[in-house]
Amino acid sequence: MPQLRQDPATHEWTIVAAERAKRPDQFRVGREKRPAPPSYSPTCPFCPGNEKMTPPEIYSLPADKASGGPPWKIRVIPNKFAALVPEGSLERRVEADFFRNMDGFGYHEVIVQTPHHDKPLALLSREEVTDLILTCRRRYLELRKMPGIEAIIIFENHGPSAGTSLEHPHSQIVAIPVVPNRMRDRYESAIQYYDDLHHCVYCDMLEKETQIGTRIVEWGQGFVVLNPYASTAPFETWILPTRCEPSFGNITDEECSELAAVLRKTLRKLYFGLNNPDYNLVLNTALVGEENKHYYVWHIQIIPRLTTRAGFEIGSGVYITTALPEETAKFLREFNEESPVESTQPAAGHQPL
Amino acid sequence: MPQLRQDPATHEWTIVAAERAKRPDQFRVGREKRPAPPSYSPTCPFCPGNEKMTPPEIYSLPADKASGGPPWKIRVIPNKFAALVPEGSLERRVEADFFRNMDGFGYHEVIVQTPHHDKPLALLSREEVTDLILTCRRRYLELRKMPGIEAIIIFENHGPSAGTSLEHPHSQIVAIPVVPNRMRDRYESAIQYYDDLHHCVYCDMLEKETQIGTRIVEWGQGFVVLNPYASTAPFETWILPTRCEPSFGNITDEECSELAAVLRKTLRKLYFGLNNPDYNLVLNTALVGEENKHYYVWHIQIIPRLTTRAGFEIGSGVYITTALPEETAKFLREFNEESPVESTQPAAGHQPL
Repeated sequence: MPQLRQDPATHEWTIVAAERAKRPDQFRVGREKRPAPPSYSPTCPFCPGNEKMTPPEIYSLPADKASGGPPWKIRVIPNKFAALVPEGSLERRVEADFFRNMDGFGYHEVIVQTPHHDKPLALLSREEVTDLILTCRRRYLELRKMPGIEAIIIFENHGPSAGTSLEHPHSQIVAIPVVPNRMRDRYESAIQYYDDLHHCVYCDMLEKETQIGTRIVEWGQGFVVLNPYASTAPFETWILPTRCEPSFGNITDEECSELAAVLRKTLRKLYFGLNNPDYNLVLNTALVGEENKHYYVWHIQIIPRLTTRAGFEIGSGVYITTALPEETAKFLREFNEESPVESTQPAAGHQPL
Repeated sequence: MPQLRQDPATHEWTIVAAERAKRPDQFRVGREKRPAPPSYSPTCPFCPGNEKMTPPEIYSLPADKASGGPPWKIRVIPNKFAALVPEGSLERRVEADFFRNMDGFGYHEVIVQTPHHDKPLALLSREEVTDLILTCRRRYLELRKMPGIEAIIIFENHGPSAGTSLEHPHSQIVAIPVVPNRMRDRYESAIQYYDDLHHCVYCDMLEKETQIGTRIVEWGQGFVVLNPYASTAPFETWILPTRCEPSFGNITDEECSELAAVLRKTLRKLYFGLNNPDYNLVLNTALVGEENKHYYVWHIQIIPRLTTRAGFEIGSGVYITTALPEETAKFLREFNEESPVESTQPAAGHQPL
C-alpha cells in the first residue's frame, strides 16, 4: 500500500509508492562506468594554466608554494554565461499595465573547487572540503551586503542529468533581487509553527528524527545527516547543524571543519554506494533579511538524479518517490565508504536499471 | 541584459537569461532521429491483442466494426504500478506525535490514446484527438465524484527525458486525496486578485496577451495558444479557453472538438518544428471543491524537455529560461505544420545541441 507523507516544515505532500519500490541497492547506477575524466584538459576553462579563458578572478585561495603544483587551490570567478548580472536597475516595472518585470540584476559566480579536473567533491580531502566551505561562507558574506539582494542560493550540479555543462568540478552561487515564492512559503510555514508552539520546526524535527533513528545516516560532530520523512526522491539526503541557526553565513570556523567531515563522508557513501550518481546539492539558508530569526535552520539538501520528474509532479507539485527513506538511510548508514574498492562491485544478482 | 519576469497569476519569478539565449531554431532536437517505432509490438501491454497484459479495463471506446481493425479506439485501465490505489483509509494520522501521513488512497489510470504503437498525439486526426478529450472528460467527471478526492491531474509524458517508461502513446490521470501546496497557492493568488479587482486574473491575462499579440501562437475557435510572459522553459506553451471556466469538467462537446483542433495544431508545430521533442503536457484544472468559482481558468500547459532543471531551480523555485517567449511564439506561429516533409529538414547552418 503506498503512503502519503507530509513534510512537517513545508507541509508539502509526497507519495511513497510502495508498489513501485525498489531495494536501495537497485538504485546503483547500472551503466558502464563513465570513462574516467583526464586529470587535466587543455580546453577546460577551469583547469590550471587556462585562467585566461574565464572572466577576471573574484577570489582565489593560494596554494602552498612548496607543493610545486598549481598556484591556487580554489578559484571564484563570475559565470561567463551569467543568468544575472551586477548591472541595471533594481526598479520593478509594469509592462502593458499588467506584467511585472525588472532588470536581471544580481550575481552569478562559479567556485572552481579544485585544480584537478578529475576530482569530484566526494574524492577531496577533509581539508580541501573545509577550504571550499570557508570560500562559500566568504562569498556568501560578501554578496549578502550587496544592495538589493534578497536571497542567495549556493549549489553544485554534478553530472549531465543534474544539468552540468562543464565536467571540471565546480559549485555556483547566485544572489537574486527577488524573494522566490517557494522560499517565502518555507518561512511562513516555519513562522506559523513558531507562533503556535514557540519552537523551531527544524529543531523539533531533528529531535524527533534522532529519537526514532531509522532515517538517520550519520550523527556527526555538530551535524546530523538524514533522509527526510517526506523525501521527494530516492536517497534525498539532508545535512543539518544541531545548533539552531537560520543562516549559513553564521557558521563558525570549527563548524566548517565539522561540516566538511560529514559532507565528505555523505558524498563518499553516495559515490561508492550508488556508483557515482549524478546529483544536485543545494544549500538552503535564510533570506537576507531573516537571518536572525530562530525559526529556521539552514541545511544542505542532496538530490541524486535517479528518477525523472514528470507531468504529475509538474502539475501538482507533489513528488512520487520509489524508495522508503528508512531503507535508503539504512543502506547509507551501513555502507562503509572507507573501503570503496570492494564496495563498488555490484551485489550478486544485481539488475542494471 | 537578462530580465526577471513575474507570472501575473502565481507571482512566481522567472529569469529570462538573454546572455545564454538561443535562436528558436537552435532548440531543434539535434540527435539522430530516434528509430521509428514499430506500428505494433508483441511485448507492449497497450497494443491490441495484448489486453490481458493489463489490469481489467475501466472503459473503452469501441471502434467501428466495419473498419476491420482493432476492436477499440481508446482504452482506460488502472495503472499496473499505481502511485495511489483505491483502498485503505482517508484518515490523516500522526506518527511520533509529529509526522503526518495517510494511506496512499486515490486513483491512477492510464489512457491508451490509440491502438497504434507508433502514432503520437501529434499525428492523430482531429477526430481521434476529440475522442481522447471526451474520454478524459468522462474519467474526470467519474473521479471527481469519488469520496475524499481533492484534486485531479491529467498529464502526458512524451519521450524518455519526460519520464516515460512505455513507448506506446498514453496519458495518465491521477486523483489525489490531499490539496497540494502548489495548487492551493495558485488559487489563493487568483482569489486575492479577484478580491482586489473583481476580475479573473487569467481572463485579464488573456485579454492583455491578445492585445499585445507577440506571445500568441494561435487564435483558435474558443481557445488561445500562447507562450506565457514568464515562461519557465523554452517553448513552454499554454492553451486556454476564451470562456472563463475554472473546471475542465465543464467543457462542452463543441469545445472538445475545438480544443482538439488547436491542441493537434500546436503539437504538430512542436513535433515538426523542433523534431519531435520530449515533452510533458499537464491539464491544470480547479480543485474539486472550487469548480464553480470564477477566479480561475483551466488550461493545458506543455513543457518541452529541452533543458534540465538543476540546483538553482530546486533551491529557489525560480526557473531560468534561455529563450524569449516572444521569439519562440513567433517561430511556432509562423511554422507551417501542414507541410511537414520539407520542414523536418534541418535549417541551413543548423548546429546540433
